[in-house]
Amino acid sequence: MTLEALPRFRAALACVRGVDSSWRDRAEIRLASLTKPPHSLGRLEWLAARLCAIQGTLSPRAEPRRIVIFAADHGVAAERVSAYPAAVTAQMVSNFLRGGAAINALARTAAADVWVVDVGVAGHVDVGGNGARFTSRRVRAGTRNIAQGPAMSVDELAAAIDAGLEVADAAAAQGIAVLGCGEMGIGSTTAASVMTAALASMSAVDVTGHGTGIDEDTFLRKVEIVARALRVNQPGRTPLDVLRTVGGLEIAAIVGAYIGAAGHRMAIVGDGFIATASAVVAAELCPSFLDYWFAGHQSPEPGHAVQLALLRQPPLLQLGMRLGEGTGAALAMHLLSAATAVMNEMATFESAGISKRHETLEREVSGP
Amino acid sequence: MTLEALPRFRAALACVRGVDSSWRDRAEIRLASLTKPPHSLGRLEWLAARLCAIQGTLSPRAEPRRIVIFAADHGVAAERVSAYPAAVTAQMVSNFLRGGAAINALARTAAADVWVVDVGVAGHVDVGGNGARFTSRRVRAGTRNIAQGPAMSVDELAAAIDAGLEVADAAAAQGIAVLGCGEMGIGSTTAASVMTAALASMSAVDVTGHGTGIDEDTFLRKVEIVARALRVNQPGRTPLDVLRTVGGLEIAAIVGAYIGAAGHRMAIVGDGFIATASAVVAAELCPSFLDYWFAGHQSPEPGHAVQLALLRQPPLLQLGMRLGEGTGAALAMHLLSAATAVMNEMATFESAGISKRHETLEREVSGP
Repeated sequence: MTLEALPRFRAALACVRGVDSSWRDRAEIRLASLTKPPHSLGRLEWLAARLCAIQGTLSPRAEPRRIVIFAADHGVAAERVSAYPAAVTAQMVSNFLRGGAAINALARTAAADVWVVDVGVAGHVDVGGNGARFTSRRVRAGTRNIAQGPAMSVDELAAAIDAGLEVADAAAAQGIAVLGCGEMGIGSTTAASVMTAALASMSAVDVTGHGTGIDEDTFLRKVEIVARALRVNQPGRTPLDVLRTVGGLEIAAIVGAYIGAAGHRMAIVGDGFIATASAVVAAELCPSFLDYWFAGHQSPEPGHAVQLALLRQPPLLQLGMRLGEGTGAALAMHLLSAATAVMNEMATFESAGISKRHETLEREVSGP
Repeated sequence: MTLEALPRFRAALACVRGVDSSWRDRAEIRLASLTKPPHSLGRLEWLAARLCAIQGTLSPRAEPRRIVIFAADHGVAAERVSAYPAAVTAQMVSNFLRGGAAINALARTAAADVWVVDVGVAGHVDVGGNGARFTSRRVRAGTRNIAQGPAMSVDELAAAIDAGLEVADAAAAQGIAVLGCGEMGIGSTTAASVMTAALASMSAVDVTGHGTGIDEDTFLRKVEIVARALRVNQPGRTPLDVLRTVGGLEIAAIVGAYIGAAGHRMAIVGDGFIATASAVVAAELCPSFLDYWFAGHQSPEPGHAVQLALLRQPPLLQLGMRLGEGTGAALAMHLLSAATAVMNEMATFESAGISKRHETLEREVSGP
């Protein structure tokens, strides 16, 4: 399939412009003038310079920020590839809305608000509680079983992507500076494994992991299902075909949110294995998207390392987390705040009256 | 030398008790009941359980918190082992007090207060500004040059350690839950390299790095000076002898603060290569100290990896930072907050009405 079938998404892709790298250069000059040895804050300086380039400023900000959780079920859960029954998707969405999930705790710690978007939950969502904002954009009650055929139709793909685009538009209208996208959906690591195998031209066993903690029998079945989904759907390496035939509704929505947010020049923090499958699709369709995207963390899923290598993005955190929901993104947001604090609050060598490096002095004494 | 010569420190060491590991077990049971797959938050769960054991509670806290920067000069700076002149130590202390340094920005982001203790700065400190609290406990105007003889006398070592003990006592009296110790002192990575070589029985070239960013000529001179300090002082592997003969006044003060804080059952976040040299000494004198200490980050200094391997402590962050000042500790404190939020704020499977894992269901159906 081509972008012809996705007119809103095609328009959004056309809005993504690479950052003006001269801002990164100016940021690096500024960072070198601050009272610390050059580059001594390592990746924090790299973050600061990238934020400057994204926002076109030497005074970047990392607030306000938001975590959006896209939730959807996966027909492939019927193959018992997960440690949990599919009913948990709707139950966990209800838990997000009551504020009792890990992402609620971590988003509070990160001073991020939480927005849950149902793009394909099969079960009943209890919309009570004030833990998160909720929007129903249910495209269908979960994808079809990718072990038997394509996950979704072109129209369903378009609807899921559009839900993500609208979330990005709303975030931009509300002045969000940093957006993190997470997901919830039993069976999602199976879909992400199939996508990663297809996009990286690798085999099922190279990209399939233990997800939420399955036992060895389930793991072997999962590898077989991933391989079967590749055989049945023959997704090739074209990102939109991969997304439609072996992806997920929430994975498609995150692609939309990513591209929409990049078009609005928002900083985007990636999350785990599933949300990074969306990043691989987005980057293949639009390499400039990566100017806006940070790899929040790396999970132990073997396919996540494959994705990050494809994207050439080093993760900010490596804490053995494998939960999704946007938890890795929420945790990494603190590092963006730290980077902006360095950029905005530190004194310069000149203003603080601090002696320069020996080499600088020598160079000045010996003249050009 | 023995602990006989350090009566206050000996008393403080006797106050350090290992944590009650039954709290860690109880914490793990609680973590398993929360609405997430078991262990899916990785190191965050390990942090949460360790904080529970330190504080003897299932409701741990990570606030209030404090960064203490111990500042002192190093006689070995006369060998031109640093990229910066020794005058920078006093200038940077003045910068801390005005609030213009990286640690000021990062401590604000971490909601930690900053306390600077001069235990051996050679130059004049301008005590104006409200960026940090300041205490002068200057033992002498920097250590002696370790390339020529011992860094300090036994009395000087005692005075430096006692300054650290007092900081820990004050923090405990003020209810500080998490303490981070950083340092400032031109020449400090040379002293830490000599200490690490001695404590790990390794050679100068294995543990010496580029510090604040020295050129290759300076690096070769630094390796030679580290080797010479080992030859001249023959520190052996006894931690107190190593600390006195080739250490630093700030490194000794951090040992005191670490042991004092552990005795007060505070959580302690480690920083870079220099502050971790203090952790190696503290752990050799008192293995239970490590129950209270977290490796905040790992810097690119080769000796830092050696130290963390000796301590068997994996770093929380690996961001290529090599600044000191407590910057790595400040950045890692956010992860402790995140861990406490998970422990204190999440719903349980039971309270949220969420289905259990397949295996659990099967086990319940099939009986014990």
